[in-house]
Amino acid sequence: MIHLDLIGIGTGHPDHLTRAAEAAMRAADLILLPRKAEKAELIDLRRAICAQVLAGADVRVVEFDLPERAGEGDYLDTVERWHDAIAACWAAAIARGLPGGGRVALLVWGDPSLYDSTIRIARRLIAAERAVRVTVVPGITSLQLLCAAHAIPFNAVGAPVMVTTGRRLREGGWPEGVDSVAVMLDGACAFTTLDQPDVMIWWGAYLGMAQQATERGRLVEVADRIVARRAELRRAHGWIMDVYLLRRGSDLAGEGA
Amino acid sequence: MIHLDLIGIGTGHPDHLTRAAEAAMRAADLILLPRKAEKAELIDLRRAICAQVLAGADVRVVEFDLPERAGEGDYLDTVERWHDAIAACWAAAIARGLPGGGRVALLVWGDPSLYDSTIRIARRLIAAERAVRVTVVPGITSLQLLCAAHAIPFNAVGAPVMVTTGRRLREGGWPEGVDSVAVMLDGACAFTTLDQPDVMIWWGAYLGMAQQATERGRLVEVADRIVARRAELRRAHGWIMDVYLLRRGSDLAGEGA
Repeated sequence: MIHLDLIGIGTGHPDHLTRAAEAAMRAADLILLPRKAEKAELIDLRRAICAQVLAGADVRVVEFDLPERAGEGDYLDTVERWHDAIAACWAAAIARGLPGGGRVALLVWGDPSLYDSTIRIARRLIAAERAVRVTVVPGITSLQLLCAAHAIPFNAVGAPVMVTTGRRLREGGWPEGVDSVAVMLDGACAFTTLDQPDVMIWWGAYLGMAQQATERGRLVEVADRIVARRAELRRAHGWIMDVYLLRRGSDLAGEGA
Repeated sequence: MIHLDLIGIGTGHPDHLTRAAEAAMRAADLILLPRKAEKAELIDLRRAICAQVLAGADVRVVEFDLPERAGEGDYLDTVERWHDAIAACWAAAIARGLPGGGRVALLVWGDPSLYDSTIRIARRLIAAERAVRVTVVPGITSLQLLCAAHAIPFNAVGAPVMVTTGRRLREGGWPEGVDSVAVMLDGACAFTTLDQPDVMIWWGAYLGMAQQATERGRLVEVADRIVARRAELRRAHGWIMDVYLLRRGSDLAGEGA
């Protein structure tokens, strides 16, 4: 029997960990740490979190190279094949590391449920092998850290929020029926494609980390500054993770613009 | 100078606390605990969390009675007046408890940014008195615990999610442009008003607490069961907090229905 814990660890600061996350890490027999070709800093952060949390606990930490996603073909198809490949890596690492079964944990950036593939990849393991039980431990997400950094509410009173991706915002424009839009996975500044004079943006990168950067203001006034700063930060650090919240309408003064 | 920490504490289990939340609680001079007429269990949970986290720390915990919201008049107007009244209570309690200034903390169910008024109420204090600085510490939300309890992703791959309220769902029906809808603040089972044969529901109440209850399935098949169970739980406990995720379309089998 394999017990698979998918543990949300927040966005890179050990203080984001919940007590439940720490307990699950220390209860594991094996923690798998994925290595990506780029973003060496991110594996270093995971290593540092393990070193700090696991002190004195009998837990093996094993690193493995994450396959890269093929850039060609239909987006959902390439994602499907990529997840298959990652599931095969996990299965091999687990077979090597825990031949007699046990508890294996994966540390997930943010929360395993939000724009993350770990739960879907875990399902492939369950489908392939009956004796896998999955537990999910929530973690603080970049959207929460964004709102905290700006001390703003996610939603207006009683009002909805669309959580979406840069790709969707670029392709579909401002979504129907909402005045608040939270955008993740935007590598290409989709906010610059909006024609919305009355919109505020609250932007944040590397949220919760030492290099945290934030910007806020009327979109028409700060969009160029964000584009430039984002490019500069990406050059300086070699990678960037950023998210933003857009809100249109009446609440501008009230939200500390 | 008053430093006001708004600390997300998750949904009632001490293991939901992050390291940052614990540190902020222990760094406070004063923690204010609101008492509501109903929901005595919720103040007991906050008291228990304080007792556990503050052991050995020099922090005063002071309880105050939360004003009740007037039920009459325009919804947003009554909310505005209610927030004014709560801000006045905070100001009085802070003036009594910290006449020379210091750090005061409020413990917020879930995350202070998500369908919570604490940040808006804090703004009233800032507006009334210049020397207030607000810090927000994110906490795990009921939506995250819902996804974790069911081990499901919040979003389909690359797809958006609408986060909304029971009132909005009831009044506006299924939102435009999304196949996933997360619903909070629904005291009246708005999911029963949807005419959506192809929708799955993942429901959860008292998430993360000892009395946690979950249901899942095709909405047309489980809606009545959820309505009945919700009523029964509410009777048994005297209160209920529940949330749910709705998803329509292709991903039913894949999400462990």
